[in-house]
Amino acid sequence: ETLMGKYGDSAKLIYELQDQGGELLALRYDLTVPFARYLAMNKITTMKRYHIAKVYRRDSPATSRGRYREFYQCDFDIAGHFDPMIPDAECLKIVHEILSELKLGDFLIKVNDRRILHGVFAICGIPESKFISTCSSVDKLDKMPWEDVRSEMVGEKGLSPEAADRIGEYVRLHGGLDLIEQLLQDPKLSQNKLAKEGLGDMKLLFEYLTLFGITGKICFDLSLARGLDYYTGVIFEAVLVQQENDHVEESVGSVAGGGRYDGLVGMFDPKGRKVPCVGVSIGIERIFSIMERRVKASGEKVRATETQVLVATPQKHLLGARLKLISELWDAGIKAEMLYKKDPKLLKQLQYCEDTGIPLVAIIGEQELIDGVVKLRVVTTREEVRI
Amino acid sequence: ETLMGKYGDSAKLIYELQDQGGELLALRYDLTVPFARYLAMNKITTMKRYHIAKVYRRDSPATSRGRYREFYQCDFDIAGHFDPMIPDAECLKIVHEILSELKLGDFLIKVNDRRILHGVFAICGIPESKFISTCSSVDKLDKMPWEDVRSEMVGEKGLSPEAADRIGEYVRLHGGLDLIEQLLQDPKLSQNKLAKEGLGDMKLLFEYLTLFGITGKICFDLSLARGLDYYTGVIFEAVLVQQENDHVEESVGSVAGGGRYDGLVGMFDPKGRKVPCVGVSIGIERIFSIMERRVKASGEKVRATETQVLVATPQKHLLGARLKLISELWDAGIKAEMLYKKDPKLLKQLQYCEDTGIPLVAIIGEQELIDGVVKLRVVTTREEVRI
Repeated sequence: ETLMGKYGDSAKLIYELQDQGGELLALRYDLTVPFARYLAMNKITTMKRYHIAKVYRRDSPATSRGRYREFYQCDFDIAGHFDPMIPDAECLKIVHEILSELKLGDFLIKVNDRRILHGVFAICGIPESKFISTCSSVDKLDKMPWEDVRSEMVGEKGLSPEAADRIGEYVRLHGGLDLIEQLLQDPKLSQNKLAKEGLGDMKLLFEYLTLFGITGKICFDLSLARGLDYYTGVIFEAVLVQQENDHVEESVGSVAGGGRYDGLVGMFDPKGRKVPCVGVSIGIERIFSIMERRVKASGEKVRATETQVLVATPQKHLLGARLKLISELWDAGIKAEMLYKKDPKLLKQLQYCEDTGIPLVAIIGEQELIDGVVKLRVVTTREEVRI
Repeated sequence: ETLMGKYGDSAKLIYELQDQGGELLALRYDLTVPFARYLAMNKITTMKRYHIAKVYRRDSPATSRGRYREFYQCDFDIAGHFDPMIPDAECLKIVHEILSELKLGDFLIKVNDRRILHGVFAICGIPESKFISTCSSVDKLDKMPWEDVRSEMVGEKGLSPEAADRIGEYVRLHGGLDLIEQLLQDPKLSQNKLAKEGLGDMKLLFEYLTLFGITGKICFDLSLARGLDYYTGVIFEAVLVQQENDHVEESVGSVAGGGRYDGLVGMFDPKGRKVPCVGVSIGIERIFSIMERRVKASGEKVRATETQVLVATPQKHLLGARLKLISELWDAGIKAEMLYKKDPKLLKQLQYCEDTGIPLVAIIGEQELIDGVVKLRVVTTREEVRI
């Protein structure tokens, strides 16, 4: 109450979730649906963009496992009517580039296509109505053995044991171009229109990824299904691979995921006009927590600022000289700091550099003022030059 | 309903403002109060940071006047126990630097101190209980003539005509160091403890700003009061100054503001421990709309991307060559694009560069593939080199 009052008259403008004046509102859940809505509302038919922003979940926070109610997402999407798999390949190239550059360790990008799963389920006799629920079971194959997934399918999802076994034959397959070719020859699957399209596009994708030189980290994995039901084509997920002799305790898992969603924009368009999209979401919160833990474990010192030089004085009554010099440095685009004290001790100023990792000190004392110079000191080596 | 369903089971995690599960929540109104709360909750006593993020107002949107319910703020604050006016001067230096660099035209930074206003009101016989309401009248002097402000004070705020006239003698004053000196000699004001402190600090501030070489744009203005009631010391506001022969229709107004708030952090601390703060808020939405209107009026073309080169092919069946080359360019850190078409026409590719302002085209045709070269073309001059 008191704090709200601090805004004075403006307090009435605060968006209280308690009382929303009869409007139906929600906090953004992710960046994909708002992107699709944006395209539809603004009649945009071609766009490539990245977006790093906060999203909100009404979840029980489990900060230790990196689960928050308010957290960042980092998305990249390509929208537009293009030739098959060219933007899709670019998305995978970007995931590959990000994970390589961040040096998170070995990783694998699993790729599949919703149309292939549709085909597989169809030839195994699964009705369309059970597609999403069967997907969610299949998606657990990376964490659970096949037997457990099978009993979930039969017990909870109501599949016949025979259908589950037939699915098992397919979804445990993974490989590369060779597997794609093999499935294209599969007498049943090759008769299914959706599966054939999906496999054809998967082949194209692998050809493009070969040209990008990144197939070494890409795996065609039929167990990849992904949870969200707006995907219509290629889907992918990047996971960190735990090395055998690596005693890292952290739970290594998915750090990026995405896929093609050709129907979402049309849902927001009054005339249902479709804009095909493919995109990827980078799990930056998870990546940050992995990187932070690594830095902590290594004992490495991370600087919180980019300050290049501290402006310091060795005697009293020289605040004016410091202000004048720091102003010149700022104007020259140099990242400079000074202590906000009238007469700080030199030792305290040098200690501040040690603590914060500032590499240089520009010292102006009485003698330097007379000589019209500045003494520049390298903090680590204590080397000094007068300039 | 249908769209919520697109999240599958996760839809229950969406933060609907309609139903908040018994929790008292609100969307962030500004960045200052959350900053103060952050410092208190984390027991941080020293911090310098900037923050660019969205804030929310339950306001009637007036997008034409740049008023939104969801918009960005851009804040810079320095928290900690320091010697007087050093961080305050840095805040003003930053405002000066931003407005100069952005080339928004001539500007003026008005400065005052809440303690001086307290002193002025006290010697004019205004009770403390009427301080904030009198401030809000005084603050209108930049938009209304003195007579109107005076009648508001007397009519609406209940001040005596004599008190209002006495206030008028002071709040219409503005100037620089000379005015500060003059007020320090004022027989009544110099007897008021708060006013004396405020004037002393104002003098110090002007000395520091002189060392920064920016006093030309700074004006000590006793009519500046600012709306928020958490300010405790120096306050300031930057306004764009309309040139006389400048027929710009846009309403030129405040583009930055801030001040010292030494009591806010203590309100969030269970033990009331204070952390003095000074900060500035840059009106980025307003600045953006001014810059956008200027660019529009000038007819100048603004590029939406930083792409340096388009990878193009002049014949069919060369998608592979394009993918290979663009991959090499990306790996080398060059910002490259290509059309997502298997066989685009060369003219279309060149047109795309013209439309989007991409300066270079890297062309690989059949001959270039044989010769092992790339033809690099400057879009504007049509100059070509084989490399």
